Amino acid sequence: MAWFITMSKTLQECHVTVIGLGLMGASLCMDLMQKGACREVRGVARSARIVLDAFHSGAVELATNDPHTGVLGADLVILATPVRTIIDLLQEIGPLLWPGTVVMDMGSTKQTICDALDQLPEGIQAVGGHPMTGKETAGFTAAEPDLYRGATWVLSPIARTSPEALALATELVEVVGARPVVLAPERHDRLVAGISHLPYLLASALVDAVCDVGESDPVIWDLAAGGFRDTSRVAASDTQMFLDILMTNRGAVLEQLGSFSRHVEELTALLDNGDEDGLAEVLERSQVARSGWERE
Amino acid sequence: MAWFITMSKTLQECHVTVIGLGLMGASLCMDLMQKGACREVRGVARSARIVLDAFHSGAVELATNDPHTGVLGADLVILATPVRTIIDLLQEIGPLLWPGTVVMDMGSTKQTICDALDQLPEGIQAVGGHPMTGKETAGFTAAEPDLYRGATWVLSPIARTSPEALALATELVEVVGARPVVLAPERHDRLVAGISHLPYLLASALVDAVCDVGESDPVIWDLAAGGFRDTSRVAASDTQMFLDILMTNRGAVLEQLGSFSRHVEELTALLDNGDEDGLAEVLERSQVARSGWERE
Repeated sequence: MAWFITMSKTLQECHVTVIGLGLMGASLCMDLMQKGACREVRGVARSARIVLDAFHSGAVELATNDPHTGVLGADLVILATPVRTIIDLLQEIGPLLWPGTVVMDMGSTKQTICDALDQLPEGIQAVGGHPMTGKETAGFTAAEPDLYRGATWVLSPIARTSPEALALATELVEVVGARPVVLAPERHDRLVAGISHLPYLLASALVDAVCDVGESDPVIWDLAAGGFRDTSRVAASDTQMFLDILMTNRGAVLEQLGSFSRHVEELTALLDNGDEDGLAEVLERSQVARSGWERE
Repeated sequence: MAWFITMSKTLQECHVTVIGLGLMGASLCMDLMQKGACREVRGVARSARIVLDAFHSGAVELATNDPHTGVLGADLVILATPVRTIIDLLQEIGPLLWPGTVVMDMGSTKQTICDALDQLPEGIQAVGGHPMTGKETAGFTAAEPDLYRGATWVLSPIARTSPEALALATELVEVVGARPVVLAPERHDRLVAGISHLPYLLASALVDAVCDVGESDPVIWDLAAGGFRDTSRVAASDTQMFLDILMTNRGAVLEQLGSFSRHVEELTALLDNGDEDGLAEVLERSQVARSGWERE
């Protein structure tokens, strides 16, 4: 099977196709183009507006709204849509890929996607992935070539992943200035439930609590400053993207919500009892933990 | 009583004393100095190190660690320490102030402080205040002259507050580029419980929840990115400052904690039941509210 020889291509020799030109996908394309890191950078987007924008802005060399055209002869295909769209796309493009093609994804949960990667036709290579960066402004217009510099980028190999496929994925991650961390999908999902999905839900609940006060006294919006701005920022994230995340990571998210709620209950009880020493102890512990993390 | 004539001084004619040269007080001094807004800017700090730093950096014209020296002949005295220190200081400096002196404060809760302002000797003027800005890095070294530009600055008059005293406080607020909003103390405290004290407590509980996971899997700290950083930022705030706040605003904070917890319970139940439509409705509502606020 002669095509297996093509597996050890370097990134520089690859035709790379990114499907999904939102913040994550378009930023990756721009970065790869600016660095001249690949043989070709192609972008696939659903909307004709974004296909045109991507093409005219030079974010990609070839832009199309047709996944079939997009993946034709691609050596590396990167799925950069919301989680459940990635799963649908894998079914759609699987039969179109040439043997030896490497498929990566940039989805925010990994277990469900890695299960779907496992269903790709034999001979197709695959590595799950998730760059740990983003912002609450989504879409092509928010994209920027430097988005991944300094970010941690999780790579989740599956049973079929060859050393060559993982090496290519690693090369891509490093070329955009990110740091690859290899983690099993279920471990990734448990960790991001705590540092990404839980913060999103509690930011949303905070906004709701402030809205309740705002209904009777809208002056609250006038007083809201940096503390509220930062703590609630992720509540402005794309809802559909987060619904995909939450619905494909329910168990781990529910576990984190439970742990968080117990800590809120503890703080509430201490305050209610006027137990200042107890409150001080809990607050100082998290103050030290949070300050220590930022310094790293 | 001839000294009452001095009441209608403009800021430009005032000897101004700021007690407490942390982030808030020192930033105010620097700004007043840079703008040449007062006849004199004096600073009072407990630590000899900060007295020296404030003097040598030109943040003030006169620096002292003695409140008696600090307030001698001052026209406007501004208390910029944590809440319960303000209350102690008011008892200490009250007898030293000349009749007609205007006392302001920059404390984070207003009801307890306004009650203490009410106990100042007769003939002393007083206005409560709270600039709605700050950052999680505290102390003199974090101070910056532009801190108040564009901020909302709540002013809470008390029964004795004269129009002239309120006018002087307003002039000070406006000279540093902030926007005065006059609110009764209890109303201020209810509103900041929602947009400042609640965010602090839930950021602390979030850090605790992530620490729980981190104990068995420290890789979580490596994955934590912008979402966790912003949502948990205020948990790094000065604990003592926040203990003062929480202990002087327990009722309002407990009310907000209750409202927040009900919203978290609602989200948890929807996720647990896999009710995606219900979840979408709640998350979209807060997404719209949060995005709309940012645009303003």
